[in-house]
Parts: sequence; structure tokens; C-alpha cells
Amino acid sequence: MAITVVGSVAFDSIETPAGRRERCLGGAATHFSLAASFFTDVRVIAVVGEDFGVAEEAVFKARGIDTRGIERAAGKSFFWEGSYLENLNEAKTHTTDLNVFAAFEPKIPEAYRDSEFLFLANIDPVLQRRVRDEMPDVRLVAGDTMNYWIKDHRAALKEVLKGLDILLINDTEAKMLAGNDNLVQAARAVLAMGPETLVVKHGEYGATLFHKSTPKSRGADLRAPALPLEEVVDPTGAGDSFAGGFFGYLASQQELTPAAYRRAMFYGSVMGSFACERFGTERMQSLTRKEIDDRFILFRELTHLD
Amino acid sequence: MAITVVGSVAFDSIETPAGRRERCLGGAATHFSLAASFFTDVRVIAVVGEDFGVAEEAVFKARGIDTRGIERAAGKSFFWEGSYLENLNEAKTHTTDLNVFAAFEPKIPEAYRDSEFLFLANIDPVLQRRVRDEMPDVRLVAGDTMNYWIKDHRAALKEVLKGLDILLINDTEAKMLAGNDNLVQAARAVLAMGPETLVVKHGEYGATLFHKSTPKSRGADLRAPALPLEEVVDPTGAGDSFAGGFFGYLASQQELTPAAYRRAMFYGSVMGSFACERFGTERMQSLTRKEIDDRFILFRELTHLD
Repeated sequence: MAITVVGSVAFDSIETPAGRRERCLGGAATHFSLAASFFTDVRVIAVVGEDFGVAEEAVFKARGIDTRGIERAAGKSFFWEGSYLENLNEAKTHTTDLNVFAAFEPKIPEAYRDSEFLFLANIDPVLQRRVRDEMPDVRLVAGDTMNYWIKDHRAALKEVLKGLDILLINDTEAKMLAGNDNLVQAARAVLAMGPETLVVKHGEYGATLFHKSTPKSRGADLRAPALPLEEVVDPTGAGDSFAGGFFGYLASQQELTPAAYRRAMFYGSVMGSFACERFGTERMQSLTRKEIDDRFILFRELTHLD
Repeated sequence: MAITVVGSVAFDSIETPAGRRERCLGGAATHFSLAASFFTDVRVIAVVGEDFGVAEEAVFKARGIDTRGIERAAGKSFFWEGSYLENLNEAKTHTTDLNVFAAFEPKIPEAYRDSEFLFLANIDPVLQRRVRDEMPDVRLVAGDTMNYWIKDHRAALKEVLKGLDILLINDTEAKMLAGNDNLVQAARAVLAMGPETLVVKHGEYGATLFHKSTPKSRGADLRAPALPLEEVVDPTGAGDSFAGGFFGYLASQQELTPAAYRRAMFYGSVMGSFACERFGTERMQSLTRKEIDDRFILFRELTHLD
């Protein structure tokens, strides 16, 4: 079933211990779409500037992603510059130029309206909510957010949470949102804000799945590992790629059983691990379904006793 | 098969968000022994002072642990005072009084000499090596160490590593020992120093198992989870309890197959999770084998897809 995703399509300049790339294609909606496109049809809503050209669009097209919702505006695309020189787990932001993104007004193409799955990537919660309200008939809605919105736009974010089935955030964000440093307690507090399901991403340590229905004695429903990687070239977009793998896999399933959610966690980890292997979107551009399936098997071997 | 463990038996004063305990029984050899005693016979080598009385000895005796190697010396036992008020993952040390431990000369009782398993808990590597040399016929030797020995006693520690089959250390220690911030690369460097097997503990995120024989494509042999705990009362001794569960389980096995090592990782995580639930040794004192088996099943459910 098709996923519509709304979020940023951007240019990133990135420096890591492995090197530097200038203005490579990035943005949460980009990373999410590419990862999800290996599992299902994906449709993007975003805004870009005049610097977004044929080469960038071709990256989406090559993966069969519907780009009719990518609006062209006068000016430059969202630009982010960051480095991971001291800590590969946390980016140091040097520049954030919102550019055309500052006036982003998401418009949903008619052709997208029959999407059964909706992903609200990390953008202003006011916009997340607007898109969600305009697509009342979707079957499943997931979303992401970040510390900035949690700290300074909490009321708007809380409205978004009420309309989400699944929230995917990282450790620090979950604890900040709940105001609680214990992961299990924080998860319960976040689930009480709306979503039925919470995925907390732990970077190189994997991710944890919580449902409202998870028995208290159990703590969490599933802990999925991350692959111990010999070389992390660029972690930018790993979290969005996790979300794309996770939600893309769910959208490919006939039934959203607890077992499907668990497998989705592994596919999320698989896609997140690939994302780190090259700069920007490079690894997703060369990836094959066979490589994904092989790594899924590897993740199983890495965690299962028999 | 019996394990001989050499290490500290101490008194700890501990403060955590859950409260404070004065002078409770602690020390790496204590936590290790109690955890391992659920799986096999355990024999302790340590030194204590005149403050170590009947009540403390009874904690070992109740678990059937051989204490003939706990030497009584004039003076006070090793005393440690620490808190985890800001960060439950890292203790802040307020006091370390070595007391009788400063002059510790491990003596191996005759009755211990047929032990087939030897665990060198975190003590001066010079002493670790001496004990290891005095027990040349053991079947399997594992050990632990800490940042202090890695930084300032590296030459002595490297001699110990040559005589170890298994090293169990935490993330920071593995990276410091290898001088490499990438876990997979650090693991390979540490394995090149001697041990066939390396267990890297990640605190609340579980632990990773590496063998020299692990294929390069795989990164690690196994990632074991930690249980997401609703309340961490006191993490003191969790790493030693992990080691006790891991090594104790191995010592209970007829054959040391790769599958046995993988199950041992889960038992290590199980024992580490219990250790955090009460102050000091309290949880180990009340624990039953049934609770261990139930939690092993829970850990399997928490990580396995089917």
C-alpha cells in the first residue's frame, strides 16, 4: 500500500572522519522515501528551490518514487551543514538555512489522496497536524519529531501525537518528551500522549518497540539490534532510513500483526545500517533487495539463539 | 565444573535516586560469585578485614560458595563509596579505601586447585597474572579489568591478556584498550592481544560477543539485549553479575560450543538485570533458579522474531 511522506528535501554538507561531501542530496523525506521505496510505493510532499535539478529528481525517480508533491519555489532549498568529527552518534550543526522551507505550506496532490499510509517526518508540528487532518482516511499514521519541537513547540506537538498511531524518536527525545530519564517509564508516558506504538531508536545500539498493550512485566515488546559496523562513513539520515524501512515494511503487509511490527523493527535496523555505509543517499542508490534480505538474515543470526 | 574467582570482597556505601545504603556487602568477586553460584560451584580468593563478620560470610554460605580462600587480615576491608545521582550508567566515586586490599597477596587453597574454570576479576594485573600462572591446568580463563589498569598499567595488563581465553569489559574500556573508537575495529584489536573471545558490555543496551573466528562480514557473533527496567535501584555489581551469569553458565556446560557461548550471553544479561533491582547483593540473595529461567525466556521473547 502506498505511503505519502511529508518532510524536508534538502542539501547537506557533511564532514565525518571518513571525509567530506558538499551539498549532497539529503533531508528527512528523502532518506525516508528511498528506504521505504524498497518495500512499497512512496509519494513525497516537500518544497525545494531552484537549485534542485534533474540530477536530484533522478535519485527519486530511479527508485520509482512519486515526486509530483515536490513543489518548486523561488529561492534555494533547505541547506544543512554539520560534522561528526568527535562523536559519530551526534551531529554538530554548523549551518541551518531553511530557505524555501521557511514558508513551506504542504499541498497534497489529488493523486496522493488514496494513500493508506502517512508518514509525518520531522517538521513543524503545525504542518504535521494540517497534513494529518487533510488525510483523515489513512489506515496508519506514523511520525517523527526532534528536540527543538519538544522544547519550544510542545503544545502543537501534543496535538500531533493525538493523531499518530506510531511515533519514532530517539532516546534523548523520548526522555525529554516524557520528562523522565528511565526509558520504560518515559515510553509509558509518551504512549499516554496518544500513539499506540512507540519506537525508540538507540543509534549504534539498535531500537526498542513499545506498544500500549505491552504487559508491564515485560518492559518492551522487542529490542532490535544495530549491526556493529566496521566503518560508519556518515550517520546522516540513518534514523530516517530506519523509519523508512520500518514503515515501508509495514505498508507492504496485508495484516498489521504484532509479528509484522517486530519484523518491521529488524527491517528498520537493516536500512539504518546501510544508510551509514556511504555519504548521503549514496548507499540507498546502489542498494538491492537481495542485499536487504541477506542483511535481514544476518540480523536474525546476530540476535537469535537458535 | 567449579570456578575459582579472585577479586575484591568489599563494603560499599551507595547512593542512587532510589535511596542510600551504608556499608553493604560488595566487591567484584562477591557479585560474580553470587551470580555464578546459580549455575555451578564457586570458590573465592580474596582478602577481608576484621569488619567482615558472620553476617557477610553467611551471604556466601547461603549460596554454597567456598570461602576458604577468603583471607582475614588485620585492619579494615576494602571500602568504596559512590553515587549514581545524575547518571545511572556511571558511578561517581567519592571514596576508595583499599585498606587490607592494598597488600593483597592471593593464596590459592589446595582444595581450589582442581577448578577447571578461573575468573580473574578486576584487580592489579600483576596479581591476575600470578594467579593465572599458578593454575596452569584450568580449562578456561576469563577476566575483567578497568580504565585505571588500561591507562597506567598497560604492560602488565597486556601480559594478562595473553593468558586469557575470554575478556569481559565495557564499551569505554574496550575502546580505550584498543585506542580505537569503532567498536568492531576495537574488538579486533583487543582479540589480537590474546583472548579468543571478547564480551563488550553496553550497560542498559546489552552486550556484544566477538570471537577471533567471527567472520569479518558479520561484525560480531551476537548482540544480547539488556532488559528495559522500570526501575534501576542500584547498578553496582551489574557488570560483575553479568560476568558471573556468563561464566557460570559456561562452566555448567559439557561442551563449550558457539551456541553455549550465545546462551551464556543471555544468562549474563539476565543476571545483570536482576542485580540492578535491589541495592548491593540483596536481589541475588532472594533470587531463585525459576526466576532466572523465566527471565531467560523473557529475554528470548524480547529479541526473537518467532
